[in-house]
Amino acid sequence: MNKIVVQKYGGSSVADPECIKKVADRVVKTRRQGYKVVVVVSALGDTTDRLIKLASQVNDNPSERELDMLVSTGEQVSVALLAMAIHKHGVEAISFTGAQVGIITDASYTQARIININTKKIEEELKKGKVVIVAGFQGVTTDQDITTLGRGGSNLTAVALSKALGADVCEMNTDVDGVYTADPRIVPLAHKLDWISYDEMLELASLGSQILQPRSVIFAKKFNVPIHVRSSFSAKQGTFITKEAKAMMEGVVVSGITCNKKEAKITICDAPDRPGTAAKIFKALAVKEINIDMIVQNVSRTGSTDLSFTVTNANLNKTMRTTKDIVKKIGAGKVICDDNIAKVSIVGVGMKSHPGVAARMFEILAKKNINIEMISTSEINISCIIRKAKAEKAARSLHSCFGLDKKN
Amino acid sequence: MNKIVVQKYGGSSVADPECIKKVADRVVKTRRQGYKVVVVVSALGDTTDRLIKLASQVNDNPSERELDMLVSTGEQVSVALLAMAIHKHGVEAISFTGAQVGIITDASYTQARIININTKKIEEELKKGKVVIVAGFQGVTTDQDITTLGRGGSNLTAVALSKALGADVCEMNTDVDGVYTADPRIVPLAHKLDWISYDEMLELASLGSQILQPRSVIFAKKFNVPIHVRSSFSAKQGTFITKEAKAMMEGVVVSGITCNKKEAKITICDAPDRPGTAAKIFKALAVKEINIDMIVQNVSRTGSTDLSFTVTNANLNKTMRTTKDIVKKIGAGKVICDDNIAKVSIVGVGMKSHPGVAARMFEILAKKNINIEMISTSEINISCIIRKAKAEKAARSLHSCFGLDKKN
Repeated sequence: MNKIVVQKYGGSSVADPECIKKVADRVVKTRRQGYKVVVVVSALGDTTDRLIKLASQVNDNPSERELDMLVSTGEQVSVALLAMAIHKHGVEAISFTGAQVGIITDASYTQARIININTKKIEEELKKGKVVIVAGFQGVTTDQDITTLGRGGSNLTAVALSKALGADVCEMNTDVDGVYTADPRIVPLAHKLDWISYDEMLELASLGSQILQPRSVIFAKKFNVPIHVRSSFSAKQGTFITKEAKAMMEGVVVSGITCNKKEAKITICDAPDRPGTAAKIFKALAVKEINIDMIVQNVSRTGSTDLSFTVTNANLNKTMRTTKDIVKKIGAGKVICDDNIAKVSIVGVGMKSHPGVAARMFEILAKKNINIEMISTSEINISCIIRKAKAEKAARSLHSCFGLDKKN
Repeated sequence: MNKIVVQKYGGSSVADPECIKKVADRVVKTRRQGYKVVVVVSALGDTTDRLIKLASQVNDNPSERELDMLVSTGEQVSVALLAMAIHKHGVEAISFTGAQVGIITDASYTQARIININTKKIEEELKKGKVVIVAGFQGVTTDQDITTLGRGGSNLTAVALSKALGADVCEMNTDVDGVYTADPRIVPLAHKLDWISYDEMLELASLGSQILQPRSVIFAKKFNVPIHVRSSFSAKQGTFITKEAKAMMEGVVVSGITCNKKEAKITICDAPDRPGTAAKIFKALAVKEINIDMIVQNVSRTGSTDLSFTVTNANLNKTMRTTKDIVKKIGAGKVICDDNIAKVSIVGVGMKSHPGVAARMFEILAKKNINIEMISTSEINISCIIRKAKAEKAARSLHSCFGLDKKN
């Protein structure tokens, strides 16, 4: 039995007819190597944004069901065009919408969850030797209503199909050639990783790396789907994302550095130090669907305490309004906001077994005269809030001192 | 029980967000008058052409299945946007693709035939008081493959839905305000008809009037679906297309004049006058999918005969090649082609009961010194081929002499 490869191509890889032809070349090459190939494609370039803009021109608050009906056409265009481009090589290929291949989701329009995938149709076509092309980002409810899976949904489609079909690998073809130890635009000595664990990738994804959305990594981890992040424009090997075993073996402590300048810090002064205060504050924010990143509260010595947290800049105004409202109700002091901050993080599964990593991070920052304003840690991640102006310097120093700089 | 109205809006009626909002206004108005409303929409403006161009850029001979997958997205965009625009009025509306409402077709991609319509879903939503918006031009095979119905397919969708739902009327909202006695650009005194019979409309449609394709009229006639052709941009009554009873009653002889300048005449000289000659010629043309319009063959006095027929200009080159090939095989003389012709026709169910209409037509043309080169007649239509340069003069004279000129 031939091995199954699921290849996902994002919007920038299928931006125009020329790009689509190049993707077809790659798919055909893989097919001719003997693999059974399933391809998942996103909408052409900025199609989704263009469609959403059209919607906003007829209704400033469009129905989510109708939005999904609308934007799902983007991927349908891509799959049909890719099938045609593959046919040009004399290779058999067939395109399907999410609905046609039975990607069944719940009815949470614009951010639906996959419930089940019926692989019968895909397997039949693979058996006939055809390349099967599936529209990413979309599914269908049991009532035949079209849904979309939300941001990064095409990646999720690819991972879910890989799992359902028992694919050997899920290739994420993107505009970068793999996962780097840091953003090369910030840290020029960053280098590509040959492999990384799901957990590390998850931290990197959550921490602002743009390659894969957390949802698809969580899904891949849950079902142990091996992912290969690689460039759409080269044949070189990229980065494999797998279980952590290999990382542990090789004794790497820190795998990557991230740097996020898109957060703001909010401090509530003199919050009453009694049970339920934090709950009330964060409940109010949750109701407004504001995601909180870091939360820091110090030990109280006076009966009231300062509470700080960070949110993405995009949510800052909404967060300030909501926070001021709740502060009035619970009787806290003033609310201060500071968007002149950056978050630098180090990520690595090796931390688990290497004590003193945090201390070393703080020491490196101190040596560079960078003040740490907030700290937050998880098992495989340590994040520090610092002044925004020092973000690059901090990232480069940490990258270098944790031994990540490119060797040649 | 409320009356059901099916309204169809073509591509020019939904060309951009502003147009879509205007269509929404009209739909909402009809809904508020108490009707149950089903709307059928085409793709926005030139979307279909744009998609076909995209296809040609990746494959000069794209698979028809994939073409249908591609172009069917156009109508899906329209239905979603129209639903959003209707919601803006506080009126409930829901959009469906052809597949979702169960417009089942055969698998003749790009020109599929409707086999069955399952109206259950539409009726459920109408019962809830919703406006139901259906993507025109498309259907789905029993294998869930997307199909399209060919040129004018949205009209066919509207008529077929009207029949399946038992609608009181099928409104065709177009960029003209009804069916005219002649093309007003050619005959300035042409006037709008209040009603016309299916048969007459069919002759007009086949003869080059651009409003309705023959397929949808044939379908409407077969199932006696009343059609109302009207302008998308005005509230005025247009033209009703119904059975012929009314026409007969009012004793109108000629209902309309058409003028087609897009045909060419081909003459095969000295074709052997024996059984099977014509069959061989037209079989060869049929194999190449060339539609023949008029055919004229005169009585033979010499053992060979001249045979003339007309085709649309677009097929002229293909027709000449095919004809020359077959002429060699059957041993006829030379093949002459003439695209400097026009066809003027008079149409009217009244002809059936009024003898002498043909004679009167020939007389009118003779008086204007217009030579008739070919004649063809049906029960309710008489067509003459004349020089192209005289087309307008012929149309205006016939229009006037058959009493069709506007009164005021």
